[in-house]
Formats: sequence, structure tokens, C-alpha cells
Amino acid sequence: DPTTFGNLKPSPETIDAIRQAVEDGTGNGYAPANGHLEAREAVARYVQHQGPVTPNDVILCSGCSSSLDICISVLGGPGKNILIPKPGFSIYRTLAEGFGIECRTYDLLPERNWEADLVQLEQLIDEQTCALVVTNPGNPCGSVFPRAHLEAIVDIAERHFVPIIADEIYEHFVFPGHEFHAVSSLSNRVPVLSCGGLTKRFLVPGWRMGWIIVHDRDGVFGEVRRGLANLSVRILGSNTLVQRALPAILDNTPNDFFDDLVATLHRHAELAYKAIKQIRGLNPIMPGGAMYMMVGIDVEHFPEFETDLSFVEALVHEQSVFCLPGQCFEYPNYFRLVLTVPETMIVEAVKRLEEFCEQHYKFDNDILLQQQNGLLNQMTQL
Amino acid sequence: DPTTFGNLKPSPETIDAIRQAVEDGTGNGYAPANGHLEAREAVARYVQHQGPVTPNDVILCSGCSSSLDICISVLGGPGKNILIPKPGFSIYRTLAEGFGIECRTYDLLPERNWEADLVQLEQLIDEQTCALVVTNPGNPCGSVFPRAHLEAIVDIAERHFVPIIADEIYEHFVFPGHEFHAVSSLSNRVPVLSCGGLTKRFLVPGWRMGWIIVHDRDGVFGEVRRGLANLSVRILGSNTLVQRALPAILDNTPNDFFDDLVATLHRHAELAYKAIKQIRGLNPIMPGGAMYMMVGIDVEHFPEFETDLSFVEALVHEQSVFCLPGQCFEYPNYFRLVLTVPETMIVEAVKRLEEFCEQHYKFDNDILLQQQNGLLNQMTQL
Repeated sequence: DPTTFGNLKPSPETIDAIRQAVEDGTGNGYAPANGHLEAREAVARYVQHQGPVTPNDVILCSGCSSSLDICISVLGGPGKNILIPKPGFSIYRTLAEGFGIECRTYDLLPERNWEADLVQLEQLIDEQTCALVVTNPGNPCGSVFPRAHLEAIVDIAERHFVPIIADEIYEHFVFPGHEFHAVSSLSNRVPVLSCGGLTKRFLVPGWRMGWIIVHDRDGVFGEVRRGLANLSVRILGSNTLVQRALPAILDNTPNDFFDDLVATLHRHAELAYKAIKQIRGLNPIMPGGAMYMMVGIDVEHFPEFETDLSFVEALVHEQSVFCLPGQCFEYPNYFRLVLTVPETMIVEAVKRLEEFCEQHYKFDNDILLQQQNGLLNQMTQL
Repeated sequence: DPTTFGNLKPSPETIDAIRQAVEDGTGNGYAPANGHLEAREAVARYVQHQGPVTPNDVILCSGCSSSLDICISVLGGPGKNILIPKPGFSIYRTLAEGFGIECRTYDLLPERNWEADLVQLEQLIDEQTCALVVTNPGNPCGSVFPRAHLEAIVDIAERHFVPIIADEIYEHFVFPGHEFHAVSSLSNRVPVLSCGGLTKRFLVPGWRMGWIIVHDRDGVFGEVRRGLANLSVRILGSNTLVQRALPAILDNTPNDFFDDLVATLHRHAELAYKAIKQIRGLNPIMPGGAMYMMVGIDVEHFPEFETDLSFVEALVHEQSVFCLPGQCFEYPNYFRLVLTVPETMIVEAVKRLEEFCEQHYKFDNDILLQQQNGLLNQMTQL
């Protein structure tokens, strides 16, 4: 949650827009299940970089997790399987398994800036594969896929007739030297459901305003569209105050706001990366965007800790520094650093991280010595 | 949607509360999945008539339909069955069948003010019955169950160990001479999940603020509680602006506001009832609460129309009066009148309804004559 510490706030335009919606009094009743037309029109304008989008291609949801929920349930079902990234955001598995869909994970490779293992990805596909989830920019890795890599992914999807669920909630969160490409903009053959929302870029996650953009190809999504419409009726749509505010939020928030936000996150990323790079036993991977950084742990040098979880638990216990262990993303021996906290806290956290590692790091000699002692003990007992 | 025509508006206290929440700026981030503690505390205070409720028994959801969604999915599953009222709100079936749960309908009896057919209800229960849905006050019937009838329902649930999902979104919407009793207040043996929310009583359906109140009995709902907690994580909770406003909305809205609302609906109900009672071919049933009235159609006197749907379609086509056909509630030969529209519109609608019925009503003689003509035609052709 980027708003926890109060250093990152929604834009004045966003607050003005919701204030206006309250005063207007037109945002109290039900909206159509897919959202008020004016709000969907505003989203359609906002996502033109994804390709041609009309208001009919937009479904407003209760946050991006609700968008993912609806997309996964409409494409999948018992007996089907879905491809999800590893490390990846745990909600994909939670949602898919809830619908009886088998999850198959494809690896993101740290040594290649978290690009997907394409050979493995392609091998995982079979007749029952209902969707390929692509998270770009990534969580927890903060990776931004280069255009060529995304094209290679889209190419696999095209050859195997697998639709893509593009989790693009971090779209435009890219640091200098990287560029964001919407999956849907790279092919006019592969059908794509793109999930996004206000949550991260507009810094109002609690408002629960997400959306699905339907990128159909030659009408193959006809039935999917009907399914999406039916499913959106189930919970009778998203908050209408926010819907009424949406056009002004999307139209009026100046680019400066986003530029400042990305510049802040980039500064935090560089600061943390440079400092952690110096810490013995840790291997940070510089992100290209989003709000996170993955840090590898040289576990053989921290023999006290059995897993990344115990490492992280000791870290919070001894130094009050809280990071999510890689386990949460099905990726052991890493932890995830959040870059949205205030700069002074990042500096302090990295200092404590260093202290913690200094205390617990074991040199090769020490480890050998310890192992030798263990062996000697065993021999004595024999 | 009671807010459509602008005659029914949320209270100034409700609008002040959301305005204050916007200004405070504490309602932008994520809340815990079950909701902010202060908001759950306020709801716990608000529903004390249901029995002892702590904030831990409260789960905030995205509207009451989301509450029902979560309750049905946590109690049921493939192979299970659920008892739902007929006529009844269509969302129960939509949700249950989505989870592979069989729906078994128990009849509400118009000749007994829409009380449930208890003999039939009890016969429908078997080992696989996961829940009994009780809607009180009712939609579409506007019925309010007397205490003794509710106790009889609760007694059946107790004897067969079936938990109750109480859809009480219309709680307190009762006309003079009727009294609302929360299902949970009538037994300390039957576990109850009560679903409610701001939607109707506070006239802000679009804000999507609903809740589940867990009435456990001797800890039998331990696993259900965990399930509810897990499911509420799936969509990461409800709108936090509204959550922040909730304590002030619930605490500050004066009783006058509710009294006025109920008085208005009661006046509309009596007005419509008395007028429709005079229309040949129609049989209105006076509601005891909520926002609706069911009107029976003497179909044998409207032989032009094959079903209540064609009756209602002709009505909207010829007179621009729109009512939902009984079919929508699995109850043919009725239509549902909404009592929230402005009084002048009710008067006008009833006038047009009368005109429509006058034009299409066929007397017994006419019908016999027509039948005879039909027979003669057939004979001629032979």
C-alpha cells in the first residue's frame, strides 16, 4: 500500500474530483453493472495506448483484484490450467484454484532481469490451457519487459491459441531507460484482457476502482464478453462515487504528478540498490519499474536461517525491518523490498539490513570450521 | 434503485460523513480485507438488535450482493443444495449455481401474506442442504414475517442442523402494524449469517457498502469464519472512503430520516394498493414493508397475453409503465411494483394500468364466445 506512510499522496485533482462527485449527488444510485458510460468513456480515452478501445470494451470492477477474479473465472474452469509467473503475485493462484483451475508456473529468470523462460513457458501449454497471465511491469520483481521479449511471449500465445490476461496495474511505472508496452498493442491476432485501475498510479488503492479492457480479435471473445457482462452483474458493479469522479481524475491529473511519482520511486530504487549491493551476502536486482525490488540471499552464508522466511522473521524481530519473504511469491532465497516508503526510512532500513547481515554472515572458513566441529562431535559420540 | 427519480435522497448526515472522509484523507489506502476496525465497531453497534455482536463478527463487503456471494460460497459447494424462497430475488440462484450448488425453492404463499410453506420447506431438506436463505422483509413481496412464523422457520433449521443466511437488507423497513425481528435474535442454537448494508436504508446503493454479521453458536462456525476471512481477501475489501464515513453515517443519521422514508413508502403502498384493488383483473397484495408490491394477474381474463412477461411488455409498450414480471422471481402471473417512485408517478402509473386493463380485460362471456368461435373454425376446417 503506497499510501501507508503519507509521503505519497493522491493528486489534488483526484481529491477535487471525488469531492465534486460527492457534491453533485449523482453518484449515489446504482450504475450499470459494467459502469457508468461517462466513466467507461474516460477509461477508453485513458488506455488508447493499448490499441483501439471503445467504452463497450471497458468493464469497471471493484479494484484490479476483482478484475483479475472476473477474467480468470470467465476464461477458466475445472479441468483447465492457467500459466502464471514465478515469482509472482499470489492472488493469481488463490483465484484460479478457487475455480478449480490448475496453476502452472513459468520461471522469471533473475540473471536475465526477470524475463520469462520462454522454452519452459511454451512446454507448459497444452489443450487445456485457458490463459497466460503476463504481469508487466512485474510484482514482486519490478521488471519491465523489453518490447522484443513481450513480442516473443505474444508469439507463443498466438501459435498455441492461448488468450492473455495482462496484469498491467503498474503500466507507465517505468524508470529511465525502460519503456512500457501494452501487451495488446503488440498483436492484432492474440485476444487480450488487460487489467488495470486507479490503485497504484493514482495512489488510491482503497477506492477499489479497477477495470478490464477487452481486446477482442475477429470476434473470438464474443462468448467471453457475454461471460464478463454476466459476471460483472454478480456484485452489481463498483463504487459509483468513484465512477462519477473518474472522468475528472483521468482527464485532469497532470503528467507532472506521475513523473514525480516515478522519479521518487526511481531515486529510492537506486539508493537501495547501491547500498544493498555493498552488503555482504545480499544480491539486489535493480528493477526497471513498479514499486519493488527483489533481493537475493546467499543462504549458504547465513546457515543460522533455514529459509528466507526465518531470515525475514529474524530481521523484523531484531531490526524491525519488515520485508516479504520470497516464499510469498513461490520464490525462495529472496525477499521483496517495497520502494514506496519515505527516503529516510529506506536509508535507515538499509543501514539496519547491513547491521543484521554483518551479525549473521558466516565466512567460508567459519562455515568449514563449524562443519568440521560438527563432524568431530559426531565422531566423539561414535 | 430508490434514488433513480431523486425524490428519495440520502440524509445530509450521510453526505457530510463522506465529505469529511474525503477531506480527512485517511480513506485512500487499503483497509484490512474485513474492513477498518472503526467501521466494524460502528456496524456492531448498529446491529445490536440482532444479538450480541463484536467487531470481529463483522465483515464489510462491496454491497449486500457481495455479502451474499461470500456467504453462499463459504457454506456451499458442488453436491450441496441450498433452500431459497419463491418468489425470490434472482441473485441467490445466480450465485449458488455459479458455485455448482443446487437450488431448491420453497414457496411463499400469497394467500398467507407470503409466509413460507413450512411443510414443503422441511421436506426439501436433506443431508446435503448447506443453508436456508430467509429474506425478511421480502423482495419482491414486501412481506414482513411475524415473529411466530420466523420462530417456526428457525425451529426447522435447528432440528435439521441447517445454518441460515438471513438477507436482512430491508431490516427496519416495516409499515405500521408490522414488526421486524432479526432471525439471529430468535435462537441461540441456529448459526446465522446476516447480510445487510447501507444500500436501501441509507439510500446510497451505488456506494456498495454491505456487511456480513456472523452469529456463531458454540463455535460451530469456526471454519466458516476462516472461510469468510479468506474469501474477503479475494477482492481486497470494500471502498475505504465509505468505510471511513461509516461510523458517522450510522451514528449520526437521525431516526426521523428513516421514519420519513418508511412513511413515504407506506403512503405509496396504500395509495397503489387501494387503486389497483379497484382494477378489474388485478389482485394486489398489500406489503408489510420493504419497497415493493406484488400484483396478481387474472390471466384467464387477459387471453391476449401468453405470460406475465407478454403482459408486462405490452404494458410498457402501450402505456410506458415498467414493472418486473413475476417470471424474474420464478413466480408467473404476477408483476412487481416498485414503491420508491414519486407519488405523482404512482398515481399516473396506476391510472395507466387501469386503462391498460380496461382495454385488454375479457369478460367470461367474451372468452366463451371466443372459444366457441375457435371451435367453430376448427369444425369448418374439418
